[in-house]
Formats: sequence, structure tokens, C-alpha cells
Amino acid sequence: MSSAGKLGEWKIIEIFMTLLQRMPKMPIPFGDDVSAIDLGEGKLAVIKCDMLVAKTDMPRGMSYWQAARKAVVSTVSDFAAKGIQPLGLLASLGLPYSFKKNDIVQTGLGLNFGAREYGTYILGGDTNEAEDLIIDCVGFGLSDEATIMKRSGAQPGDLVATTGSFGKTAAGLKTISEGLMVPSKTKRELMEAIYMPKAYLKEGLALAKTCVVTSCIDSSDGLAWSLYELARMSRVGFEIMDIPVAAPARRFAKSQRLDATGLALYGGEEYNLIFTFKPGDAAKVSEALDGAFFEIGRATNRRGRIELKAGGRVESIEPKGWEHFARS
Amino acid sequence: MSSAGKLGEWKIIEIFMTLLQRMPKMPIPFGDDVSAIDLGEGKLAVIKCDMLVAKTDMPRGMSYWQAARKAVVSTVSDFAAKGIQPLGLLASLGLPYSFKKNDIVQTGLGLNFGAREYGTYILGGDTNEAEDLIIDCVGFGLSDEATIMKRSGAQPGDLVATTGSFGKTAAGLKTISEGLMVPSKTKRELMEAIYMPKAYLKEGLALAKTCVVTSCIDSSDGLAWSLYELARMSRVGFEIMDIPVAAPARRFAKSQRLDATGLALYGGEEYNLIFTFKPGDAAKVSEALDGAFFEIGRATNRRGRIELKAGGRVESIEPKGWEHFARS
Repeated sequence: MSSAGKLGEWKIIEIFMTLLQRMPKMPIPFGDDVSAIDLGEGKLAVIKCDMLVAKTDMPRGMSYWQAARKAVVSTVSDFAAKGIQPLGLLASLGLPYSFKKNDIVQTGLGLNFGAREYGTYILGGDTNEAEDLIIDCVGFGLSDEATIMKRSGAQPGDLVATTGSFGKTAAGLKTISEGLMVPSKTKRELMEAIYMPKAYLKEGLALAKTCVVTSCIDSSDGLAWSLYELARMSRVGFEIMDIPVAAPARRFAKSQRLDATGLALYGGEEYNLIFTFKPGDAAKVSEALDGAFFEIGRATNRRGRIELKAGGRVESIEPKGWEHFARS
Repeated sequence: MSSAGKLGEWKIIEIFMTLLQRMPKMPIPFGDDVSAIDLGEGKLAVIKCDMLVAKTDMPRGMSYWQAARKAVVSTVSDFAAKGIQPLGLLASLGLPYSFKKNDIVQTGLGLNFGAREYGTYILGGDTNEAEDLIIDCVGFGLSDEATIMKRSGAQPGDLVATTGSFGKTAAGLKTISEGLMVPSKTKRELMEAIYMPKAYLKEGLALAKTCVVTSCIDSSDGLAWSLYELARMSRVGFEIMDIPVAAPARRFAKSQRLDATGLALYGGEEYNLIFTFKPGDAAKVSEALDGAFFEIGRATNRRGRIELKAGGRVESIEPKGWEHFARS
């Protein structure tokens, strides 16, 4: 019989989605970055949990302080993608029996640092014994139903853009897992991306304020996969003309004779926002983000098809990305 | 240097509490059953997470369906203790690589069953790979600041009561862990308490409606420990005159030549509500609960002292209970 490992994260989620009864009038469908509850008068309560498991989510060399901060970042990033300020966080912890007092202190400090960095607080949590360090970071926020940026909503013709470039985490993880020799400046930049990821909360809040964003997702599962998700929930396709590869990822790819585009497309644990808007609203988007974004393509009516158009050729982008249980 | 195992859950929580900056004007202090955020106009958003780790929280013989349901019950119980209907739940999951498809299905069904049993829904969650089954169940609800039942608030002279009797889970866990021979009727009742625990949500909601409850806690960490917590947060002591021992726990204690009172006091994973009120409000409490509660003693001004007064003798009740990392 199939096991979790053979099914993979996304198939498992599909199974759960067939088993769970739906709350009537869910303001945000199952499978978006966050969950929401209608509070009436156009207000939504928004909640989200994101679990970090040391074995799979804590790359070699990452400190407990960094892991705890990262757990916060990944939850905050989901709020960023919806354009919502997280008002409070909880941390449910599983700690190994042998976890040292100083590790506990570093974990607590990392949680606090991450929360304060994004203008919020850890309000409480739960402490348990587990085989491995587990940090489930829970966030709560409020939103107006009218301004929340959903995954659904992109329409053919909309432009698609990202708040940042891609590829550093894929390059960095490869560097660590394969023990590659990489020039020190490049390595420093790659490690920074892995150990100190950033949630684009300020950008997400600014985007939501424009009221012109038609859909948005965070790229924590990778650029390619996130585009597929946006396409699936919005019932569109995407034609990608330009993939912004981060400079150190490009240098890394060159030195390792790897395809830089592949690193940018199929990585993960990068917390860029990927969002869509009407071409006529580009100036508003640019103003909100001080011009700091990359237009990468446009939505098409070829449902579920994500194509890369470059140098006169059209290639299909594969539906793969950062998936738990996946063994490559 | 100390490890998590040597420090124990409560000391670890103390450490975290020194490291985390407090949100200004927290409507509910750190360390209560739930966390809350002031929404203005006397309204509170209430959130809570409770992590189940199979190794420590899933007794032998418990199915995955039951474990998933139990994860929901323990979160719902915290809402019950505050008198709040959970409006929605999330489930963050860590699943072992070898977890079978049917185990996944049973886990999803158990989560759904638990949620529907208490009038709520699973709205979303997160799926990860972990060494052991982990279910962090997150709950969200709304409350009026005026009616939420806090741990603080008991005053000397208040009566203390519980929604149910104690000892079945302690007896049941002992039966399982030591492989004891227990008459089948008793065993069935003990196993029912362990595998199918109940959250006193209806009772908690009814109690909050009376507006006469001065403090409340759920007894998931055991009767003794919960009384200490209530005493600590309310700055009172308790004089306990009568401990309601469940009939099967009493029969079990007799057959095993054990102290029934000890089973009732120092168990855990029992989700009774323990609450206080003024003697003059006993009729209102009785009406709210249809008489189904046990008056067990009263609050005193002997701060932090929990005493058992029975048969003319006064004994101290020890501050122990269900603690993660504890090895007895």
C-alpha cells in the first residue's frame, strides 16, 4: 500500500481535502496561503500555521536561533502574500529530550526576534517532547474581505510579477548538500538567503493597499510550483518571458556549469511574492513597491499551462518544486 | 549543561517566558489556556495551539483516528475552559515517511470527526515529514472581554468545582503501560476515557453565560497541577474537601491496592473543567450545568497552598501532574 513518502506532500493534501467537510461560506477556499473566517461586515479573521521540522527544513549549519526565526518568517510570508499584518503569533514546539538549555534559549530568542522584526509578538504556545526539533508557528490577523489578495483572481492578460529574484536558496542548498567549493562572496550571499530568509511583508501590505492586485502567492514552494498554484486557483495559464535569477545564483550556476533558470524555477524556501495585476495598473504597483519588482510574464487563457517563452522558443515549465517527502 | 529532559516542560516554559517580549495590553496573560488579542470594543480574538506527539501523547492501542480526534479535543478543551466556541481549526501535521495511505485517511477522518463533534471545522493546515506523527491543532474563536473565564480571578472564599470526576485516565494508562489484568467492564471504561476523551465545551459555554465564574482551567495537566495553576494565577490557595474519583478508577485502585485519591489528583489528559464562583452563585452554576458538577472545596488566602482536608486531617497536595519530558 502507498506510504506518505511515496504519495508526497501534495497528494496527501489532496487526500485530506476530500475528507474534511467544508465550513459553509468559507471566505477563502481551501488551499490558499491562509485560512479565514467571516466575522461579518466585510471583516475576516485570518489564521495560518506552518510547521518547521529540523530534519527537513533546517539545512546543515543553520543555528537554532535561525531555525526559530525562519519558522516565524515562513508564517509571516503567508500573511505577506495576502497583504495582512500578522497581529499575533503562537509557537507550538516539539523539543528533543537532549535539547540543551542554551538551544532552548536560542530558540526562544529566535522566535522573539522574528516576531519583532515583523512588528508582531509571540503570544503563547505549547511545549512538547519530540524526536526532532519541531516548531509550528501560528499566525493571526484581520483583513477586509475586499482587500485580501487571494490565489484566485488572475485573469488572462494580467501581468505577473515578483518582489525579488530567485535561485539563491536552490544554489545554497546544493552547495551545502554536495559540499561544493564556491567563491566566498557568492557563498556568503547564498548562505544568507538560506539562513536568514526574508518575508516580503512590507511589500505585501503595500500591494494590498493598491487594491489592484488580482492574485498573489508566496513562492515558498518554488517559482514553478507557485505559478502552477496561482494558475490552478485562478483557472488561467502563464506565459513567462523573463525569469529574474539572482546574481549570486547566476554566478554559482556558471561556475558549476548548471542551468541558472532551473535553479530559479525549481528551488523553494524563498519567500518572494508572486502576484498579478492589469497592465493598466503597473504604475500603481510600481509606486507601491518603489519600482522594486520584476515583471516576468502574463496570464493566458491556456488553463494550467505554464510556458517559458524565451529566445523565440516556447518550453513548458514543469510542475515541480519544494515538496516534503520528495526524495530527489 | 541542563537538557530539555532534565529541565522538564514547566521549567522550559518559564525560560521561554523570560525571553519573549510581551505585547502591550495583552487581554489575557501569558500562561492561560488560550492567547488573545484585543479587537477593540470589548471583543477578543482567541487563539490556541496544542501539539500531539504520537510517542508521548498516543497511548498504546490508540488508533490514528482516535489520536487525530484527541488532538482536536485537547484544543477544544482549552476553548471550553474559557467559555468560547471555537469557530475554526487548523491542523499542522508531521507524518512519518512510512505512514500508510490508510493511516493518512484515518487521521483526516479523525480530525474532521472531532471538529464536527464540537460544532466547528478544519479550515486548513500544513503537511510535513517528521520522524513521528505530530498533530498541532490550532483553534480560533471570538469572545467578549467581559465574559471570558480566565485562570486569574478566584478570590478567597470562592467555591471550587469540577465538571466531572477524575482518575480514569491515570488508571487506564497504568493498566496499559504495566499490562495489568483488570475486570473487563472496568477496563472498558478506563480505555474509553483514554481513547475517546471528551471536551466539556457545552458546559464551558454554559458556565461563561452565567457570568458568575471567577476563574476556570481545564484539567489536562491533572487535577493537582491545575489547582496549583489556578492558585498561582489567582494568587489564592485551595482547601480541597472532596475529590470526586470516577467509579471505575475507584474499583481499579481497590483491585490494585492503590490510592484512589492519588490517581485522581496526579493523572492528566482528562479534560474536566475546574472553576470557581461565589457561594451565593451556586444555584446559577447548578442551573447552567443541570446539577452535573462536583463541589470540591474552596479558595483560601493561603497563597499557593493546596491542601486536602479530609477525615479531620489536613495534608498538602503536591504540585505534580502530567508533564512532558517527565520520566517517572
